[in-house]
Amino acid sequence: MARVNPYDIGLDKNAANHTPLSPLSLLARSAYVYPQRIAIIHDGRRLTWSQVYTRCRRLGSALRRRGIGNGDTVAAMLPNIPAMYEAHFGVAMAGAVLNTLNTRLDAEAIAFMLGHGEAKVLLTDQEFSDTVAKALRLLPDKKILVIDVDDQDYRGEGERLGETEYENFLLQGDPEFAWRIPDDEWDAITLNYTSGTTGNPKGVVYHHRGAYLNAISNIVSWGMPPHAVYLWTLPMFHCNGWCFPWTMAANAGTNVCLRKVDAKMIFDLIRQHRVTHYCGAPIVHLALINAPAEWKQGIAHTVNCLVAGAAPPGAVIEGMQKMGFNITHVYGLTETYGPAAVCAKHPEWDALPLAEQVTLNGRQGVWYHMQQGMTVMDPATMEPVPWNGETMGEIMFRGNLTMKGYLKNPKATGEAFSGGWFHSGDLAVMHPDGYVKIKDRSKDIIISGGENISSLEVEDVLYRHPAVMAAAVVARPDPKWGETPCAFIELKPDAAPSAQEIIEFCRSRMAHFKVPTTVIFGPLPKTSTGKIQKFILRQQAKSASAIE
Amino acid sequence: MARVNPYDIGLDKNAANHTPLSPLSLLARSAYVYPQRIAIIHDGRRLTWSQVYTRCRRLGSALRRRGIGNGDTVAAMLPNIPAMYEAHFGVAMAGAVLNTLNTRLDAEAIAFMLGHGEAKVLLTDQEFSDTVAKALRLLPDKKILVIDVDDQDYRGEGERLGETEYENFLLQGDPEFAWRIPDDEWDAITLNYTSGTTGNPKGVVYHHRGAYLNAISNIVSWGMPPHAVYLWTLPMFHCNGWCFPWTMAANAGTNVCLRKVDAKMIFDLIRQHRVTHYCGAPIVHLALINAPAEWKQGIAHTVNCLVAGAAPPGAVIEGMQKMGFNITHVYGLTETYGPAAVCAKHPEWDALPLAEQVTLNGRQGVWYHMQQGMTVMDPATMEPVPWNGETMGEIMFRGNLTMKGYLKNPKATGEAFSGGWFHSGDLAVMHPDGYVKIKDRSKDIIISGGENISSLEVEDVLYRHPAVMAAAVVARPDPKWGETPCAFIELKPDAAPSAQEIIEFCRSRMAHFKVPTTVIFGPLPKTSTGKIQKFILRQQAKSASAIE
Repeated sequence: MARVNPYDIGLDKNAANHTPLSPLSLLARSAYVYPQRIAIIHDGRRLTWSQVYTRCRRLGSALRRRGIGNGDTVAAMLPNIPAMYEAHFGVAMAGAVLNTLNTRLDAEAIAFMLGHGEAKVLLTDQEFSDTVAKALRLLPDKKILVIDVDDQDYRGEGERLGETEYENFLLQGDPEFAWRIPDDEWDAITLNYTSGTTGNPKGVVYHHRGAYLNAISNIVSWGMPPHAVYLWTLPMFHCNGWCFPWTMAANAGTNVCLRKVDAKMIFDLIRQHRVTHYCGAPIVHLALINAPAEWKQGIAHTVNCLVAGAAPPGAVIEGMQKMGFNITHVYGLTETYGPAAVCAKHPEWDALPLAEQVTLNGRQGVWYHMQQGMTVMDPATMEPVPWNGETMGEIMFRGNLTMKGYLKNPKATGEAFSGGWFHSGDLAVMHPDGYVKIKDRSKDIIISGGENISSLEVEDVLYRHPAVMAAAVVARPDPKWGETPCAFIELKPDAAPSAQEIIEFCRSRMAHFKVPTTVIFGPLPKTSTGKIQKFILRQQAKSASAIE
Repeated sequence: MARVNPYDIGLDKNAANHTPLSPLSLLARSAYVYPQRIAIIHDGRRLTWSQVYTRCRRLGSALRRRGIGNGDTVAAMLPNIPAMYEAHFGVAMAGAVLNTLNTRLDAEAIAFMLGHGEAKVLLTDQEFSDTVAKALRLLPDKKILVIDVDDQDYRGEGERLGETEYENFLLQGDPEFAWRIPDDEWDAITLNYTSGTTGNPKGVVYHHRGAYLNAISNIVSWGMPPHAVYLWTLPMFHCNGWCFPWTMAANAGTNVCLRKVDAKMIFDLIRQHRVTHYCGAPIVHLALINAPAEWKQGIAHTVNCLVAGAAPPGAVIEGMQKMGFNITHVYGLTETYGPAAVCAKHPEWDALPLAEQVTLNGRQGVWYHMQQGMTVMDPATMEPVPWNGETMGEIMFRGNLTMKGYLKNPKATGEAFSGGWFHSGDLAVMHPDGYVKIKDRSKDIIISGGENISSLEVEDVLYRHPAVMAAAVVARPDPKWGETPCAFIELKPDAAPSAQEIIEFCRSRMAHFKVPTTVIFGPLPKTSTGKIQKFILRQQAKSASAIE
């Protein structure tokens, strides 16, 4: 006879003891507890948590009244302005799914996403009206309710495309809208298309549970105190701003909006609002490091920042530390809600020489508190690599900070999750202390004479050259070696080293087979999130000639 | 035709994107990331996170090897020593449920809990061997594996009762035990009996999901930075130490053990280990406030503390603030995993006069980040009371920080959750800012001439008298008024006011009908968690004579 487990009887879930996890709860709490605290600063405008909450309820209600509900997609082509922040809550209050669009994409890409995601509504900013108008013309059969967001802080060209303006639309909604969290925390909350460099982008679906947990994990894993002042240097369209719209609602802090990344304006806002926290790709931090000293005057408080991205963090981490900013390195992908790993600091590292600190802090590290695991495995055998800092494998994630899957793409979803782990596509080694260090994207590795060369490792050296502002290394086809490293370099103003000088610099700092055989100077093509577009450079490398 | 929701198709849970929430994950992470950091300090002993994790795995494995598994109960009669901390993880690693026993209870109560909870194993400390031996004799038919924990820091009397000692038992376990988190986060993790003052205690069941979420909510709602040094003034047998064993695993901080609350030792440990955080009932904080000044010398760093409990917090909050400790008031019940509400501070309160700060901070406040809601309702209509600071109702909770239910007690479970809210039994008002303020336990209210008198309100005034160390007010039956307030007072050393003096003191500070008619001096009976045992005082009050 099977034994009865007394803990399974009469102890069921009910409305009193179980609530689906949803970041909407976090906004409701801050509006309740801190109604009068400033939630959003945008240019001269201030919104309290109470006001933001009311506006989100209006948005949810107005969408509902237009027939938008469960499983419907609401797209947003917006910079980091209040409407974008509010969309992260209001759309979900209607039961719908927010699809934030990368504002740097072209009309074809936007049209693909609006079509594939089946958007029923589009919130759009006049700055992007050209692109959006073209995208909509590519979708003549789609009926999309277009809502213009007129941002007072935008003074450029553009035109209205929609039937109504955002503030008017809000007025159509009920400020007391009785929204409900979803019955199931597994319900979708947002849709983020990957900026795939080949083929059509994939639609990464986030759910309420994961959004809630990563919102909280940002606080715990970063050690954020309550009431942070957070500057929006990171686009909210990028992995939902790494979940920070929801984090800031939990934190009851202040969001300082920013339409575009501009080093002078960033320092001014940091000084004016005593910004305590911000996030960004390396390019953002580099812009600050390389800014004139006078822009940085008058900032005496500690500024904490997160950096993530495929570009080499060594120079960034060193530069930020020298500037007195407290930088922490995180790692993740669109598929992991943005950061799902952190190079967790050890207090005793502070006593080490700066160069060692930079090396230690420049690693991808360990899984976030609310992720379940991250490891490096041989994808063929699914065996973890030895912790020797040398054997390469693929970074794998598992846990609650991993996407629901790719929208309408069961094949890609199945492949991504094969073997019960999410395959990141990033190649890395495991250090003896269990910290992960990326060596490269699978497709970015250079194989020369049968030897693997990590393009990141070469780039790390290039960034140490005083004339180098940005650098990218890709494979160039070579009849003898198969491939050789080809370096693309963007120089600092007034710097003019020769290609040979750069090569000599590398030779004295790495194994000779890793040294670039070609050096090309010029501006580097970048995505809107600051990632260097290596697929363009690979095309250029094919036609470049080697130096030796 | 029903529309297909594209977000529900091909986006299911799998091992890569969904993990049941469990605090065991938090320990595993800290052991991985910070293996060499000190996790536990006990007397002269130090254990790292790696060692603690290994010892927990051994415990889980050793239990498994003795046939303990899912749905089995492992009881612990232990003070705040390393074995008690480890039991919070090791027992769950075996799939079993930890029942921490209140070490101050008598043999009959312990026997009831061991019997009702169907304990299969008992971890016990020699200090309690008298009680435990008696309890076991009351259960002649039970086969309980008794394991003695020989604590080096215990130098009192006692005897071994079990077949093996804890350290030997650990050696029978596999240090590499491949434990698994439960398949279902709703599975029970611990069992806590309420210290009911009438009838048999009820067994409150916690699940992995709630334990995980409150572990994290303690960090977010208190604003704990990483690597806190946490002093164990709060018994771990009390709501699993308010979930702080799991919080500290997430925090990767240091647990400083403490066998018993002793003011001098607390100050010594704070000084020696630079303790940053501790929790306790008001009695603990009062002991510190009233300690000789020389014990407090040499503590220059900020100490953060939480206070909770039914006793009046006004005097405690004021005293702690004067001492320079940063005190935060939390509120909850055994049924809500300990604290599930916090008197969330507003930075602008710091500018107010101390008396106002004390009043504001002395409220029960608002729900914890990871609780879903707390409100005050008329239990008959389930309508919220107006936010006027006057209308009394019952505090109700809902959300993920509410117990699974009472073990083998569907009637009590159903009543507690009736109407979709957990009924706390505490009477309170709602202030205009949405903060809850307790007026009394339902059974502690005094009804005199048809008027409700809050015993807490009277006690608050008594605590302001310079001679009063502790005070409790209960109803005394009165032929004319029905009931009148009867005050029991424990005086500070060398203080000797008359009853009439106390009454005059009250008269000048409250409505006359609320002033105690009887004042009795002497030590107050307290539970092990510092709660004054009013049911004993009520008995005494019946035979006391009125002063006027």
